[in-house]
Amino acid sequence: MNDILLMLPGPTTVAPRVLQAMNQAVVNHRSAIYGEILTETNELMSKTFQTQNDSYILTGSGTSAMEAALANTVNAGEKVLNIVGGKFGERFMKIGQAHGIDTQELAVKWGTAVDPKTIAETLDENEDIKAITVIHNETSTGVAAPIEEIGKVMKNYDALYIVDTVSSLGGDYVDVDKFGIDVCVTGSQKCLAAPPGMAAITLSDDAWKQVEGVTSNCYYLDMKAYKKYVDKVPPQTPYTPSVSLTYAMHEALKIIEEEGLETRVARHHKAAEASVKAVKALGLELFADEKVSSATVTAVKMPEGITDDQFRGTTREKYGVELAGGQDHLKGNIFRIGHMGNIGYKQLAITFAAIGMTLKGLCVDVDPGAGVASITESYL
Amino acid sequence: MNDILLMLPGPTTVAPRVLQAMNQAVVNHRSAIYGEILTETNELMSKTFQTQNDSYILTGSGTSAMEAALANTVNAGEKVLNIVGGKFGERFMKIGQAHGIDTQELAVKWGTAVDPKTIAETLDENEDIKAITVIHNETSTGVAAPIEEIGKVMKNYDALYIVDTVSSLGGDYVDVDKFGIDVCVTGSQKCLAAPPGMAAITLSDDAWKQVEGVTSNCYYLDMKAYKKYVDKVPPQTPYTPSVSLTYAMHEALKIIEEEGLETRVARHHKAAEASVKAVKALGLELFADEKVSSATVTAVKMPEGITDDQFRGTTREKYGVELAGGQDHLKGNIFRIGHMGNIGYKQLAITFAAIGMTLKGLCVDVDPGAGVASITESYL
Repeated sequence: MNDILLMLPGPTTVAPRVLQAMNQAVVNHRSAIYGEILTETNELMSKTFQTQNDSYILTGSGTSAMEAALANTVNAGEKVLNIVGGKFGERFMKIGQAHGIDTQELAVKWGTAVDPKTIAETLDENEDIKAITVIHNETSTGVAAPIEEIGKVMKNYDALYIVDTVSSLGGDYVDVDKFGIDVCVTGSQKCLAAPPGMAAITLSDDAWKQVEGVTSNCYYLDMKAYKKYVDKVPPQTPYTPSVSLTYAMHEALKIIEEEGLETRVARHHKAAEASVKAVKALGLELFADEKVSSATVTAVKMPEGITDDQFRGTTREKYGVELAGGQDHLKGNIFRIGHMGNIGYKQLAITFAAIGMTLKGLCVDVDPGAGVASITESYL
Repeated sequence: MNDILLMLPGPTTVAPRVLQAMNQAVVNHRSAIYGEILTETNELMSKTFQTQNDSYILTGSGTSAMEAALANTVNAGEKVLNIVGGKFGERFMKIGQAHGIDTQELAVKWGTAVDPKTIAETLDENEDIKAITVIHNETSTGVAAPIEEIGKVMKNYDALYIVDTVSSLGGDYVDVDKFGIDVCVTGSQKCLAAPPGMAAITLSDDAWKQVEGVTSNCYYLDMKAYKKYVDKVPPQTPYTPSVSLTYAMHEALKIIEEEGLETRVARHHKAAEASVKAVKALGLELFADEKVSSATVTAVKMPEGITDDQFRGTTREKYGVELAGGQDHLKGNIFRIGHMGNIGYKQLAITFAAIGMTLKGLCVDVDPGAGVASITESYL
C-alpha cells in the first residue's frame, strides 16, 4: 500500500514529519494549548496566502471552503458570475444554485483559460453582479487562469473577487493582497502536502462587509461564527475541529516556511516544465493550451486505441505509480499527472519511466526511455 | 501536554493504536483501497448504530451531521419540533432557523428530561410537523433523554424521528432499528474515542423518501450526493474525505467490536454510577435530575464561593486533569466530568483524587479522599 507513488492532483504524498505530527495526543479544542496551535496555523495560512487579512482553517474538504466562500458573501437571488472551464468551475455553479443564488456562467472552452477582457465586458453589461468566482488551477483540465490579470480588471468593479486556489496555493503564484483577491480558499491535500480533510479561507475587509449583509443558510460553514470564536480567549473554532489535522497542517505549513514560498513555487514550475517536455519526448500530446498549462497538474491526451483501464491500471498495478484519469466527458480521453507538494526529479523520473514502459507494453510505438531521459535533461 | 488526563465530554483520550492508524500513508480517496476502508468503516458504523440501514461518515464535526440530518429531510417553511433542554437542543433550533425551517420549540427545564407524553400531545395538536429532533445525551446538562420510550410514541406518527447521539453512541443504549429512529447522527471524538473531525449519519427508508422530496440548500452536506457516490465502484465520498481520520475511525470502531458494544455500554454505565456516588461522597450536588443522569457525563454544581477558574484551573494546572465547565448561563455554576471512551476505575480514581485535593486546597470543608475512596468501593 505504501509502495504506490501518488502522482495525483491531490491527495499528494504526505511527509513522515507531517504524518507523525498527528501522533500527538488529542487536546481539548477549547484550551489555551489548542488556541495557540490554531492561531499559529491560521497565521501561517495568511502568510501562505500572502495576505494581511485573517485566515481560517475549516474541518472539511476544499469544497466546503468553496461553499463557505459563496454562501457567506452572496444572498439568495443575487447575481454571481462563475467562470467555468472545467469540473471545479461547474461546482461553483452548483453551489450557487443550491443556495438559490442567481448563477451566471461565463463558459470557457475546456483546456483554455478565460480572457480577463471578457470578464470586464460581462461586468460592464451586468452592474448587479455581486461577485465573480474563478478557479485558479482547474485540475480537471490542467489549466491555470490568469488570476493576477483578472485581479487588475476587478479593481475597476465593486463585485467581490472570489478565487479557488485549492490545487495551486503553495505550488503556483498566489498573492492574495497584491492580486486584490477578496475571498481565497484552499485545501490541505494538494500543494500544501498535508493530509486531506482540512480547508482554509481568507476574506478581505470588503468581503466581510458583504458577509454582514448576508443571511446565510449555512450553519456549519457560517463564517460569522468562525470570526466570533477566533476572537475568544483562547482562540477557538465554533464547532469541534479536527485537532489531529490541525497538527498536520501546522507542520506542513512550517515545512513550506522552511523551504520558502518562492522556492517552492519555482520548484513546482520547474516540475511542470519538465513534465511538459517529457510528455512531448514520449510523442504524447498535451490536453491544455500550453501557454496556460498548470504549474501543478499536466493533462495529457490518451494515445489512440488505449483505454484508461489499460493505461492507468498498468502504471498502478505493474509500476506502482498512481495517475489521475479524466473526469466527466474527458473520462478515458485524457490522463493527468499531478506534480504537487513533495515533488522533484525523483518522482518525475519514476513517473515517466512508468509511463514509457506502460506505453511500450501496450504496443505503442514509442521509445520507453525518452520521457525519463528528458527529465534528466531538465534537471541536469 | 501529553500528561493532561482529558475528562471532557469530548474530545476524549485516543488510544495509541488509533493514533498510530493515522500514521499510514494517505491513499487516493477514489481508489479501491480507500473504497474498502470506507465500506468497512460505514458498515462498522451501522453495527454500532445497531441498524440494518446504511451509514455514512462525514468529514466534519458532530454539528455538521446535525445540519445534514435536518437540512436534508425538511424543506424550508416546513415544521419541525425540537426538544430543547440544553445547548445542543438549542443548536437544532438555530440550524433549522438558518435553513428557513419553521422551528417549534418544546422547552424542557435544563437538568431534566422530556416526558414522551408531552411530545405525543404536541404532535396531536400539530399534524403538520414533519420531524422531531431529540438530543439523546445533552452534554451541557448531563441529562439522557428517554429515546426508547420516545421511539414507542413516535411509532404512532408520520413525523421523522431524528436523534443526536453525538455524545452517547458507544457509551449508552442506542438501538436505532429497535427504537424506530429515522435519522441518527454521531461524532468521532466522544464515546467512540476516535480523534475529532469526523461525524456519521444513518437514515431509514422513510427518511430517504422524505430526502427525495427536499430541495436542500446544502452542497457539502447534501446526503443525496453521499448516497450516489457510495454506490459507485469503488465506493467513495462525493468530496475529498479525511483519509487519515477514516483510518482512525476504522480502528476505533474495531476496538468497540472487540470489546463488544454491550460490555462497553455497561462499562460506561458503571463509570457514571461510580461518578455519581463519588460526587455525593465529596458532599457535592448533582446538577441533573439523578433519575435521568447521563451515562457519559456527570454535571456537578460548583461549591459556593469557588470560581470556575479556581476550580478547573487547579485540577488542570496542579493535578493534570481537564474537566469541562458550564456553558452559557451555567458558566461558573457547574462543572462537568466526561466519562466517555477509554474510561475505567483508573481515570476516575485520578479524577476524584484531583477533585478532592483541589477542593481541600480551596478551603472547602471536605475529606479530600472521600471521592476516590468511593470509587474503590464501586469497582471492588
